[in-house]
Amino acid sequence: MQNFERLELDRGHRRPLQQQLIDQLKAMIQQGTLRPAEKLPSTRALADDLRVSRNTVVAAYEQLESEGYLQGQARSAFTVGVATRAFARERQERITAGQKIATPPRRLIAPRPFRPAQPDIHLFSLKMWNRHRTRVLRDTLLLQYQSRFSMGLDTLRQNVGTYLRESRGIRCHWDEIVITGGSQQALFMVGQLLLHAGSSVYMEDPGFPGALRAWQQTGATIVSAPVDEEGISLPLPMAECARVVYVTPSHQFPLGVCMSLARRLELLRVARERELWVVEDDYDSEFRYNSAPQPSLQSLDEHRRVIYVGSFSKTLFPGLRLGYMVLPPHLVEHFARLKATLEDHGPLIDQATLAGFLESGAFDSHLRRCRRIYRERQQLFLDLISARGLPIGFPITGRGMNLAGHFAIATDDARQSAALEAEGVDAPALSSYCSRAKLSGLLFGLTAFTDAEIRAGIEVLASTLARNMLSE
Amino acid sequence: MQNFERLELDRGHRRPLQQQLIDQLKAMIQQGTLRPAEKLPSTRALADDLRVSRNTVVAAYEQLESEGYLQGQARSAFTVGVATRAFARERQERITAGQKIATPPRRLIAPRPFRPAQPDIHLFSLKMWNRHRTRVLRDTLLLQYQSRFSMGLDTLRQNVGTYLRESRGIRCHWDEIVITGGSQQALFMVGQLLLHAGSSVYMEDPGFPGALRAWQQTGATIVSAPVDEEGISLPLPMAECARVVYVTPSHQFPLGVCMSLARRLELLRVARERELWVVEDDYDSEFRYNSAPQPSLQSLDEHRRVIYVGSFSKTLFPGLRLGYMVLPPHLVEHFARLKATLEDHGPLIDQATLAGFLESGAFDSHLRRCRRIYRERQQLFLDLISARGLPIGFPITGRGMNLAGHFAIATDDARQSAALEAEGVDAPALSSYCSRAKLSGLLFGLTAFTDAEIRAGIEVLASTLARNMLSE
Repeated sequence: MQNFERLELDRGHRRPLQQQLIDQLKAMIQQGTLRPAEKLPSTRALADDLRVSRNTVVAAYEQLESEGYLQGQARSAFTVGVATRAFARERQERITAGQKIATPPRRLIAPRPFRPAQPDIHLFSLKMWNRHRTRVLRDTLLLQYQSRFSMGLDTLRQNVGTYLRESRGIRCHWDEIVITGGSQQALFMVGQLLLHAGSSVYMEDPGFPGALRAWQQTGATIVSAPVDEEGISLPLPMAECARVVYVTPSHQFPLGVCMSLARRLELLRVARERELWVVEDDYDSEFRYNSAPQPSLQSLDEHRRVIYVGSFSKTLFPGLRLGYMVLPPHLVEHFARLKATLEDHGPLIDQATLAGFLESGAFDSHLRRCRRIYRERQQLFLDLISARGLPIGFPITGRGMNLAGHFAIATDDARQSAALEAEGVDAPALSSYCSRAKLSGLLFGLTAFTDAEIRAGIEVLASTLARNMLSE
Repeated sequence: MQNFERLELDRGHRRPLQQQLIDQLKAMIQQGTLRPAEKLPSTRALADDLRVSRNTVVAAYEQLESEGYLQGQARSAFTVGVATRAFARERQERITAGQKIATPPRRLIAPRPFRPAQPDIHLFSLKMWNRHRTRVLRDTLLLQYQSRFSMGLDTLRQNVGTYLRESRGIRCHWDEIVITGGSQQALFMVGQLLLHAGSSVYMEDPGFPGALRAWQQTGATIVSAPVDEEGISLPLPMAECARVVYVTPSHQFPLGVCMSLARRLELLRVARERELWVVEDDYDSEFRYNSAPQPSLQSLDEHRRVIYVGSFSKTLFPGLRLGYMVLPPHLVEHFARLKATLEDHGPLIDQATLAGFLESGAFDSHLRRCRRIYRERQQLFLDLISARGLPIGFPITGRGMNLAGHFAIATDDARQSAALEAEGVDAPALSSYCSRAKLSGLLFGLTAFTDAEIRAGIEVLASTLARNMLSE
């Protein structure tokens, strides 16, 4: 019995005594200190020894029995499980040797100026959202499995359809719409279904890293096409087994170019001729401050070659993780099968809440409010840049959440970006989005930040640039 | 101008007049009734004609301009956009011809007796859940992008780790846990990372259709292994490039067999020898009514070949769509990259709420309550079956959400299942889960149904079987 004298319970420890006892007995079995078939002390004897209640020992033994460490019919006659001989040796060492020390848990963080593509969540009325949520939760069927709705709740698909028709001229039946886990999941699904190792996909250069990741996952060849002042440049380079062309026509990521109508029509002609699927990521199209937007590619397309992708992450809040995709009719069945395999169906309470939020008009007024405030913030930023005479040019303004700034003097933008980051300002280097394109500049997101934060950010920008550009 | 005389607004219609005007002008442009560069009436003239306010016409023109249908500098001089010649002809016909009539939207449905694997959502306290949700929402950072948490919120991963360690003896660091969109997404990810066309995966026969779909998506060869009274039978058949063996050891789906400890240890030995990854889908392990469960495969595994998969869909509610996976250390980085590509991060508010719910102990008491009630329902069902002397045998009871019933007399189970469905009772045929195995029986889910529903379901079962088995 002397093995059991090693047991020692720490009454000052947060971990309950019963759990401490379980842990120690397990460790002794795993390390081979207790041998298979070895008899354990009676619950009464051990309880006395350890000065704990007998219930504590009984519960510990039962737990260990349920996990197969102990065997026993009556409580007084527990023995070490015979099958535990398999892990008597070695196990402890191996587990420890094969594992790194776990990292400490991380905290949620707020975006710092001028992190791109961050909506101002303080403009969003969580209270109103919760009111809609309470209303839809009267229907507890939302809590059940609803596998027929792997493409999203029908009511939400209808309301998204109405919104897209009215705001972007999208023409589709509601059952051609898929609700996705953010637009990233939409891009992932496109990659899975339309690309494979050996096929090619066209990307704007510079371009959106999230899309790039989705295409890379498939093993497809990425073919870069430069971006000029009308959008992705045409003709597209020739490529083996080209299947997809990915574009951000409303507000090119990251440059902000809006694809011209002529270029749009030409792209659709090429897509038809070469049987390419056009992925139209309509990122940022909701935020136009002066001029009217061009019609969406999808609304111009006679031949249904366009897959239209969008998200509520930036118009509502990113933590929601709801996006959508409008599919050509031929592809609907394929996407439905993939979606069901990918996750059965998505979170239904959020989907129903969003459907109500759209239908009530709350979404439209929220969007109008954001548009007004985002426009003011962009203007303030530009005014300050210009007042300070900073050597950065902003050729494209008046829309979007971000502004691409180009250095007037040749400089290493990655170095500037790193220097800013060290000072608490996020502004990714334009070159970090480039494949073959040569650009030097920074991307600034303005939407999530107050006037004071924008002013403070500009101060840091001015002093950091002054220091760094001088030293080059 | 006579084209414009065709315009007709319906004041009784729900659709706003302005939108009606937009729709009709668009249709005329698309159909070629209005030609590119054709001049439109002034806003004042058209407003007079249609007897609407001038603002209505102005807004309609501006919307059409924003979509590229019209061009105009001053409001009085709008013309049809030149680029619209591309869709002047054909478009309308093509769109219509290429599309089916949209299906009407579908309603949410409640599960009917005896649909398998449905938790009773009425046992769940939505009120308490919402209390936790309100508490976590004090931290509005949950609404922001938090891309560092694509594997799930760290607090949730830690609390899931504690729960799994205490309930199933799972041994892992919290950062080896991924939070997924239900267990289906976990299975999908396993398939994407570990299987490909040319590789093989072992499946229990009969087996879980959701897993089968995930493997099929990869193009891998599915190799069936029979299930006996100790679980998946060994040795596994030889197969080219075998990578994965998928098992449901706690409560085999659909038969309910619990894999013996000896078989568990043998499976782990084989996995190590042949370098297979073992996917342990611990489906249903939470519901044991009499005997203690076997230790999980993961807890027995010395060599970290096990990927442990579970879900909160059945212990909380399916509409939540949260599951988890415990990964071997070597695979963590690969899964992290895939998860970020698949959907950036998951819905954070639900994750934080669940973390609080687990930590408070509310989860444990909910589970205890469900266990007690589900056990009673299973017993009632068995008592009624036995009292009616129905020709169905239930060899495995005392655990799980479902019971597999085997016909005592040879009969076509698919036919019986279809006859029951027509009478409002869901009980899938066991043969529908089989690949090569020969079984005849039905799968009954008992957890979501009241005593009255169970009684009524048994009546239908008795009369349907009597009618159908007689007529065979």
